[in-house]
Amino acid sequence: MFKEFIKKIKKYKRIGVVSHIRPDGDCIGSQVGLSIWLEKNGFEVDAFNDDDVPVNLEWLTEYFPIQSLDIEKIKKCDLIILVDGNALHRFSHIESWTKELDVPFWMIDHHPDPNDEFDLQVSVPGASSTCELIYNLYNESNIEQLEKSAAMALYTGIITDTGSLQFDSVTPKTLEAVADILRRGDFKPNVVAEQVFSTKTESQYKLLSLALGTIQLYESNQIATMYVTQEMLEETQTTNSDTEGFVNYPLSIAGVKAAVLLKDLAEEGVKMSLRSRSNVDVNVWARELDGGGHQKAAGAWHPGPLEKTIEDVISIGKKQLNQIETT
Amino acid sequence: MFKEFIKKIKKYKRIGVVSHIRPDGDCIGSQVGLSIWLEKNGFEVDAFNDDDVPVNLEWLTEYFPIQSLDIEKIKKCDLIILVDGNALHRFSHIESWTKELDVPFWMIDHHPDPNDEFDLQVSVPGASSTCELIYNLYNESNIEQLEKSAAMALYTGIITDTGSLQFDSVTPKTLEAVADILRRGDFKPNVVAEQVFSTKTESQYKLLSLALGTIQLYESNQIATMYVTQEMLEETQTTNSDTEGFVNYPLSIAGVKAAVLLKDLAEEGVKMSLRSRSNVDVNVWARELDGGGHQKAAGAWHPGPLEKTIEDVISIGKKQLNQIETT
Repeated sequence: MFKEFIKKIKKYKRIGVVSHIRPDGDCIGSQVGLSIWLEKNGFEVDAFNDDDVPVNLEWLTEYFPIQSLDIEKIKKCDLIILVDGNALHRFSHIESWTKELDVPFWMIDHHPDPNDEFDLQVSVPGASSTCELIYNLYNESNIEQLEKSAAMALYTGIITDTGSLQFDSVTPKTLEAVADILRRGDFKPNVVAEQVFSTKTESQYKLLSLALGTIQLYESNQIATMYVTQEMLEETQTTNSDTEGFVNYPLSIAGVKAAVLLKDLAEEGVKMSLRSRSNVDVNVWARELDGGGHQKAAGAWHPGPLEKTIEDVISIGKKQLNQIETT
Repeated sequence: MFKEFIKKIKKYKRIGVVSHIRPDGDCIGSQVGLSIWLEKNGFEVDAFNDDDVPVNLEWLTEYFPIQSLDIEKIKKCDLIILVDGNALHRFSHIESWTKELDVPFWMIDHHPDPNDEFDLQVSVPGASSTCELIYNLYNESNIEQLEKSAAMALYTGIITDTGSLQFDSVTPKTLEAVADILRRGDFKPNVVAEQVFSTKTESQYKLLSLALGTIQLYESNQIATMYVTQEMLEETQTTNSDTEGFVNYPLSIAGVKAAVLLKDLAEEGVKMSLRSRSNVDVNVWARELDGGGHQKAAGAWHPGPLEKTIEDVISIGKKQLNQIETT
């Protein structure tokens, strides 16, 4: 999959590697893994991201530094590679700079439906992660170049984007890649997993404690809701970002087909995260609530108040369940 | 590792496969995986366990039935194989029946320090799981015999005994085994992971909600405690078994080196689960509290009351931390 990439990259000298806004493990992991590959192959490399690297991933920037986006520095690059996103608007200022910059934009990504706005793209929808793709880059060029730091970066991205190798995107090839990554990197899985996943705070658990108390089940336990309010955030001194992953709790109750996390925060209306682990299509569901997304994960919005939101979201969910049962 | 096993088993005809008390995923997975292997290789097979198969693993008994231990049936077997335990007392009545039964007892297991009480043993301490060993049995005999049902059973045991492939026992070979298991079994990881892990109840989360509210941090956040009381179980209509895995919550707080779950239930004293994710040896710690176990996981007991237990457990933990810092 990297044949054209490997052939064409030879004519460039200084390369900027940019990862997407609100970076996650796969984004930072692939950025660090690619930057190390580029450096090992004789390129000058700058890695950019405008947002802060999440605390649990900061250790990865010791393997390769990530700078804030800087148009003067970008101008010195003769190629920009965007990782883990398939539309320019996912890369902060990059979209608005494209006209000013006379430089090709390449992309490496695994999300579906890529935009047609890149000069070269390695787009593999359905791959577990962009990090799995970067592993393939090493494998198709010189796998001996895959050493500890890049291996740990790629492993981070693969496990964070697959719920610790549990998602349906994980194939035998993914696991063979991870086996090779562990062997070449010579590290134990727990060394990375603990750094990446064991970074909760006492406050987050106090918030989770309050949120778990709000779980409600509907339609013979097929739909579960959980909510977080502004008062809960204030009481536990937490913010919206501390609710990350909360929706997985109601979703993991036996029999639940879909779950909704409602966030009634200090803003207009109620935001929702919808998740499915069945043939319930939460994308269809969310579209009736001013939102959308994918079949298994979507976001939505309701003007509120909270009680009315729950009533409406359950009424739409019920309709969805009935449709599935009759098809 | 199965050379002698494969050679010697040929002289037997009817084989009983027994798994240990309070069965878990690796225990049932290896029992089902081995029973299918035996049947495919022409043996008559009975699988036994005296305890109920946990609800999230019941689907595995559709692949191979598991009966209650029955001495009359056991007497008809000319070989008994014990899986996922390395001492006879881990197998319910088996220990007391050994004198009465004139039949060899074999063992397949991955725990450390096996007892010397078996006629043949395949003991590989440090292997991720007994299921990984059973995979090797297929691999060393005829891997073509590994089909969907056994593959799903073995996958279940490997992921449940490794925290979803995250523990330090997971090696490149483990991941290559899992890759082969997924390929031959022709299933997606989420199909099993959801059945095995997404089986929480609303009551368990109500209990977790109360327990999370009790988290306390000590010694600059290096030690975390969480507790469950009899009143909490009554309020949420749960039992002791619903606290399974709770200790991982305090353990996953940033900076925590060791965590203690205290259970002040309707019995004498306070039971404790101690877990380490550092060089803190909770086995040493637990030995000062009428208990023991391994470096990273141990159990202990204190006469109570709860407040005094916490005070004592923290005082011992503090001593442990100091010892580590000075060595």
